[in-house]
Amino acid sequence: MRIADRISDLGTETAFAVSGEAAAFAATGNRVYPFHLGDINLPTPSTVVEGAARAIADGKTGYCPNAGIPQLREALAADIAASHNTPYGPENVVMQPGGKPTIGKFILTLMNPGDEVLYPNPGYPIYESQIEFHGGVAVPYGYTEGAENFALDFDSIERGITDKTRLLILNDLQNPMGAECSLEELERLADLVLEHDLYVLADEAYFDMRYAGKSKSFVEQPGMAERTVILYTFSKKFAMTGWRLGASVGPTEIVDVIAKLNVNDESCSNHFIQYGALAGLAGDQTEVQAILDELHARRDATVAGLNAIDGVHTFAPNATFYLFPNVTELMERKGMSDYEEFRRAALHATGVSFTTRLHFGREIPGEANRYIRFAYSGINVPDIEESLSLFQDWAEA
Amino acid sequence: MRIADRISDLGTETAFAVSGEAAAFAATGNRVYPFHLGDINLPTPSTVVEGAARAIADGKTGYCPNAGIPQLREALAADIAASHNTPYGPENVVMQPGGKPTIGKFILTLMNPGDEVLYPNPGYPIYESQIEFHGGVAVPYGYTEGAENFALDFDSIERGITDKTRLLILNDLQNPMGAECSLEELERLADLVLEHDLYVLADEAYFDMRYAGKSKSFVEQPGMAERTVILYTFSKKFAMTGWRLGASVGPTEIVDVIAKLNVNDESCSNHFIQYGALAGLAGDQTEVQAILDELHARRDATVAGLNAIDGVHTFAPNATFYLFPNVTELMERKGMSDYEEFRRAALHATGVSFTTRLHFGREIPGEANRYIRFAYSGINVPDIEESLSLFQDWAEA
Repeated sequence: MRIADRISDLGTETAFAVSGEAAAFAATGNRVYPFHLGDINLPTPSTVVEGAARAIADGKTGYCPNAGIPQLREALAADIAASHNTPYGPENVVMQPGGKPTIGKFILTLMNPGDEVLYPNPGYPIYESQIEFHGGVAVPYGYTEGAENFALDFDSIERGITDKTRLLILNDLQNPMGAECSLEELERLADLVLEHDLYVLADEAYFDMRYAGKSKSFVEQPGMAERTVILYTFSKKFAMTGWRLGASVGPTEIVDVIAKLNVNDESCSNHFIQYGALAGLAGDQTEVQAILDELHARRDATVAGLNAIDGVHTFAPNATFYLFPNVTELMERKGMSDYEEFRRAALHATGVSFTTRLHFGREIPGEANRYIRFAYSGINVPDIEESLSLFQDWAEA
Repeated sequence: MRIADRISDLGTETAFAVSGEAAAFAATGNRVYPFHLGDINLPTPSTVVEGAARAIADGKTGYCPNAGIPQLREALAADIAASHNTPYGPENVVMQPGGKPTIGKFILTLMNPGDEVLYPNPGYPIYESQIEFHGGVAVPYGYTEGAENFALDFDSIERGITDKTRLLILNDLQNPMGAECSLEELERLADLVLEHDLYVLADEAYFDMRYAGKSKSFVEQPGMAERTVILYTFSKKFAMTGWRLGASVGPTEIVDVIAKLNVNDESCSNHFIQYGALAGLAGDQTEVQAILDELHARRDATVAGLNAIDGVHTFAPNATFYLFPNVTELMERKGMSDYEEFRRAALHATGVSFTTRLHFGREIPGEANRYIRFAYSGINVPDIEESLSLFQDWAEA
């Protein structure tokens, strides 16, 4: 069979293999504690469920406009305008079947083959994959450990910029690290973007997933809204990961191209789910807050359980539902240098299933510290406590 | 702004502009009779609606596997295996958010830049767009008027094949023409495919939308299942256009690559809708048959209304919900040679809104006959009769 050459440049999410291993381990009668996937084991708010059901009954089962229903584009623009202090209107919003499609469509719209794209690594692995699949050069930048959280490694960003750099991918409130830029970091990044005339994908999948403080968008920096596309998703805030609804939000000229890509790819996002999302945005927020409160409690339990372990240290980020504990000492003590060996040993000894740095972009030569990722969105507090006690026993044995 | 070069090769569905014009005409107080879009104004069967609602209640609101839920892949494989006399299993099925995504993913998986791809013209305009967007050369083939329906123009197919031809797109039970291949045509096409070592996209969006006889798939031809990807969709049979669910069905090696594209593009199709589709396939088919019966009555009314008009002739295809009437004489009599002038004159004089040959791929130099397309999926029989009477009065005035 003659598969096209470009497919050899296509990456994937290797974290799904961890799901497979965990499922196989569970299938042989073992208890698994799932910290490996950023899925949410909480019900979607009834505002959304009932809004979607009403729309089906109202006959919203045919095609809708490629860019989305006007009411939702308007409501979402108003919501984001308010939280981002930026004057977005419906013409700046194009609906997508999930958050992820914005990544590929942003790259297709703005990157020529051979262009260089700065992207976070460790980071969501689809950035790397989509850049290379469409013929670009993926240039990683990193983070360093600060006092209270990870911080942007500006050295690696500045080192990565060349005459060919065209795009920057920023995932503030970051997966897998939970990193959050300070105002100073955002300002410094905006200066670099202007100086080098870059366009930016601001992956804000976790913008509303926070337990203290207030999220600050990169688009609030002067001149940035004009050169930034926001990846918005309903998946996290409304516990709608499996519904598949999100949006690309940005300058009209880019949004119009992305809508034309919609025509070519999936025609439109599901019609009645857009009414469900509209009801979710407009309706009572009690259930949305309850999701955040539950995740907050899980964060606290996971942070406490991990930091109790000798040789493990994690920050307690105020946003996302990820922790990225430093396990350098623990792996050394266990005599393990291989991430996969360590991960499998922990899974088989304790049932605790997590991903590692390896699942978030190609490892960069010379990395001194070892990190694993815990997602606490799919596991309840009692199971977190039980599992981390088992993990501690194993780690300290 | 620096939009990427590739975007200049991206096409669209110009039929959406006709929707816009029709809506604008209606907004000024005029009655519009919608024959322009292949949407369905009938409710989705309750089996599907209830199956999806049950799945939401059961918590199927998180991510599902990238290739789709195993139960649906299995049920759909069994359904297609039975109707296609071909041994498909779940490993041959990868779910998609609609029928359309299979077009781009097939091309990405099998076409290198510079490869030539044969595609039907007049035909669904996204073929042409996706081939050229991804760097291929779109080579049109046509149809000729036979005795009872349109027939493949093998001269144009054979003329189009060169050393660089790698792929063939076949849309049997065709949009916009309603054409259906005879067994002899399928055999002759399979011979050409083998002789020139081509791979095939069989767009079977309308395979189950038929009012007499039985659909024959191209994959039943010897050796063709091994080199063909079927575009399957739930949109038409189950009146689910706005739900966005379909599948790519084909050789495992291709299906696996397409599943990897899913990981990169939309992660997965909506989770609970897949349970709805499963319920639709397994459940009582009374409502599905009622959809077909209603469309059958509409076909008869539209065919009768159009063929009553002096200078108009349409076939009465047993499948699809499209007619492609020859209006060469009518346009001549009206003194109009421009499709858009004719379409707009009819809309403004009668409210009858339709698309023309222009909306289905680039016109090929030297085309002698004039055709327009009527979709009867979105308009009821009384409105069909009323509107075609108005259209006849205008046409014969």
